[in-house]
Amino acid sequence: MMSIKHEITVYNSLSRKKEVFKPINEGFIGMYVCGPTVYSDVHLGNVRTFVSFDIMYRYLLHAGYKIRYVRNITDVGHLLDDGEDRMSKGAKKDKLEPMEVAQKYSNGFHHMMSIFNTKKPNIEPRATGHILEQIEMVQAILDNGLAYVVNGSVYFDTLKFAKEKESYGQLSGRIIEDLIAESRELKNQSEKNHPSDFAIWMKASEEHLMKWNSPWSVGFPGWHLECSAMSTKYLGKTFDIHGGGNDLKFPHHENEIAQNVGACGCSPANYWLHTNMLLMNGRKMSKSDGNTISPDELFSGESPHVSQGYDPMVVKFFMLMTHYNSTLDLTDDALKAADKGYKRLMEAYKVLNALETKATSNTADDEINALLDQAFADMNDDFNTPKSLSRIFELVTKINSFKEGHIDINTLSNETLSRLRDDFYALVFDVFGLKDASSSNDQAALDGLMELITDLRQGARENKDWGTSDKIRDKLSELKIQVKDGKDGTSWTFN
Amino acid sequence: MMSIKHEITVYNSLSRKKEVFKPINEGFIGMYVCGPTVYSDVHLGNVRTFVSFDIMYRYLLHAGYKIRYVRNITDVGHLLDDGEDRMSKGAKKDKLEPMEVAQKYSNGFHHMMSIFNTKKPNIEPRATGHILEQIEMVQAILDNGLAYVVNGSVYFDTLKFAKEKESYGQLSGRIIEDLIAESRELKNQSEKNHPSDFAIWMKASEEHLMKWNSPWSVGFPGWHLECSAMSTKYLGKTFDIHGGGNDLKFPHHENEIAQNVGACGCSPANYWLHTNMLLMNGRKMSKSDGNTISPDELFSGESPHVSQGYDPMVVKFFMLMTHYNSTLDLTDDALKAADKGYKRLMEAYKVLNALETKATSNTADDEINALLDQAFADMNDDFNTPKSLSRIFELVTKINSFKEGHIDINTLSNETLSRLRDDFYALVFDVFGLKDASSSNDQAALDGLMELITDLRQGARENKDWGTSDKIRDKLSELKIQVKDGKDGTSWTFN
Repeated sequence: MMSIKHEITVYNSLSRKKEVFKPINEGFIGMYVCGPTVYSDVHLGNVRTFVSFDIMYRYLLHAGYKIRYVRNITDVGHLLDDGEDRMSKGAKKDKLEPMEVAQKYSNGFHHMMSIFNTKKPNIEPRATGHILEQIEMVQAILDNGLAYVVNGSVYFDTLKFAKEKESYGQLSGRIIEDLIAESRELKNQSEKNHPSDFAIWMKASEEHLMKWNSPWSVGFPGWHLECSAMSTKYLGKTFDIHGGGNDLKFPHHENEIAQNVGACGCSPANYWLHTNMLLMNGRKMSKSDGNTISPDELFSGESPHVSQGYDPMVVKFFMLMTHYNSTLDLTDDALKAADKGYKRLMEAYKVLNALETKATSNTADDEINALLDQAFADMNDDFNTPKSLSRIFELVTKINSFKEGHIDINTLSNETLSRLRDDFYALVFDVFGLKDASSSNDQAALDGLMELITDLRQGARENKDWGTSDKIRDKLSELKIQVKDGKDGTSWTFN
Repeated sequence: MMSIKHEITVYNSLSRKKEVFKPINEGFIGMYVCGPTVYSDVHLGNVRTFVSFDIMYRYLLHAGYKIRYVRNITDVGHLLDDGEDRMSKGAKKDKLEPMEVAQKYSNGFHHMMSIFNTKKPNIEPRATGHILEQIEMVQAILDNGLAYVVNGSVYFDTLKFAKEKESYGQLSGRIIEDLIAESRELKNQSEKNHPSDFAIWMKASEEHLMKWNSPWSVGFPGWHLECSAMSTKYLGKTFDIHGGGNDLKFPHHENEIAQNVGACGCSPANYWLHTNMLLMNGRKMSKSDGNTISPDELFSGESPHVSQGYDPMVVKFFMLMTHYNSTLDLTDDALKAADKGYKRLMEAYKVLNALETKATSNTADDEINALLDQAFADMNDDFNTPKSLSRIFELVTKINSFKEGHIDINTLSNETLSRLRDDFYALVFDVFGLKDASSSNDQAALDGLMELITDLRQGARENKDWGTSDKIRDKLSELKIQVKDGKDGTSWTFN
């Protein structure tokens, strides 16, 4: 029997309130997160979403759950307003077979996720890999009388669904009447019985690159269908957590629920979690007005919006400083502050590891234990990373005080020092998934240090300081570094 | 118009002779390689296959071709002799959903491919992602009268195929009569009209985990079908190169050809390339008798078969020392030799980069140019890496002679020195895909060097040798390394 360490409360978008998280099967969690559309490089806002869910995943793992984490790859592309499939658009742009475009940007996405040190999902299904399942789901919705076929395309009947199930719009809080008012003259609009109806299968035009045979037409699945089909396949008709960016709440997630209810008779997920938007300088990021920055530009500093490059771990730390459920405003000043905070945190971990106590008393224990308890309690409260981090920084202050002698380290018991080390590591590295970025400067530093050392060795030889030159020789030999003196100066290699 | 730098000859398994390679569309290549079955960790023999095709891919790119390189992921699993699907077997072992097993070992496979510094294919389709396409191919073969349905399973009619197409067995050189003689009492044998017939769709038993709806049964595609369906989808009915390990020649590739001819009326690939087996100590690797080693064991040295750990780049170098078409015998002695050779090669590149000529004559040019030409000619001759490497080592000797002054570097023209640098880099790093492994020791070396430097600084201070201590301070500041003197000794960080 598994033991779960923490009772966790989450903000459920469906009920619009915080609820104690109770999985369907004790100790096990099924979690589905809407993944990237791989027709271009991943946006920083998407990175925020995936980093946020990664931290939830990590914390739930830390709490002791066994989790099946499914995050899809949208390689079919979404049906755009102008009726053009995004993947085909990407393919035309790059003059590639659509699946080559998908592969290229999938690889890029995976690379970026690895740069941000996120864990891989347990299953990463591709939309194009589940056409059969999507066709079957369309058929089930048709069989249940909740969709209709027009000219080879299949539309979900929102009006009939709302009448029969009384649930359309529950997640987004929109009602059919609003949707009618909002609806614009979209392509194929004329084929729909009602403006809020949506395509679950689209007949493809001649030029359309990605298309499959189906009972209704050679075509492709509608935007929302893949997540319904793949979450059902890998997590069952009802599972625990469904996540995504809050721009997906409507229409994507609303329609996902309608499709699942329409096909299987039940709502897919018990808890719907949504991450909030990433702004820059207080405004929505947007390519058209230049208020945008890519992850790579952020790392290199090659952007008018930042004064310097920031390490990916600094960017991640910056993201942690705001709750996933709040908008996050990216500014150069905030990144600078994150840079300082991140370095202070990494430094404190080294200091903590060097601390030793004689444990002559344990008067410092209570405060340390209380802060650690609180850091976890903050995470239990809807994964509140900024609050948890602020506790950790109170601990950083304590750790530095121990080091400086402002608090006597010997008033800390061995048990609590050991807990401090374990929990600090667990939160900072296991749960937040930070890592020490300083090692990325290694190669340049090595070359520089070796330059200095060969220089010092030369000086020592000239001064007949054999003690120093022997010391250098021995250390280099220990490190398996071989220095070669050649005509053109010295060079070095590892043996 | 693209210009192709090299005329390349390949050994075509189909014709059993070397042929000049001529792609269907000038300047473009479609290449399909049978990828891994992701139900367990990748074997070293498979690594050899994928490294070999990676080098061909890299060389064809170097030659100037635009290539669509497709390598599949077999996540359906193959139908084993005992009728059990390999993926399900893996899933039972690990108590996971089959797709979780597939994801886990796909990730592991990608990680290993990245350790061996191979390039990613342009498209990496999964078998489970192409069930629809496989069902359609089964239907096409049925429509052409070359398959029959028994109890929900569909079998390819080899006898009728051989009679009508006169081509079954062309690749493997087997004839139907031999196959009859060879056939054993396999499961479902009784359903077949003829022992050499093979399943293209299998009805699934109740317990079978991976299954899909089809016109014939809830079941799964036969072992050989996925490659026929996916190569056709992404490369067309006929493409240029089909590769794989030579254990796949029969029955996998033979049946692939039969399926393609049966469904589309033409043989899929013009050139069939096969890699040969990896042996250990002269014998076939086999788990049952302990004559086996995993890549990780090879890297760590934790195996009775090796005296030490070998860097992945050394293992790759070792693979290059034998032609892909010959058996490769892994022994500790051969790896030790590879270790030396690899380091000599990396060292020579550093030496080459430091060479400078005054070009007072060009008497050394001819020999260098001839060796470089020959190194490419060897690669043009069916990607002969061992021969090409031997030319490169003749160049290494020359490079070292230039450095030592045994040959006067000033007898080399600037043009030829520049070509030597470019081509050396192109072959060793771009085509063979080697990289300098020494950087992996960076962290330990950095710590060690900083220990030495703080020690030297301490000594200098004690001796009031301000010159030395200033020099150290300035260099560390330049490298953005901050040294902190604390109660418990000194520590350092990057700023």
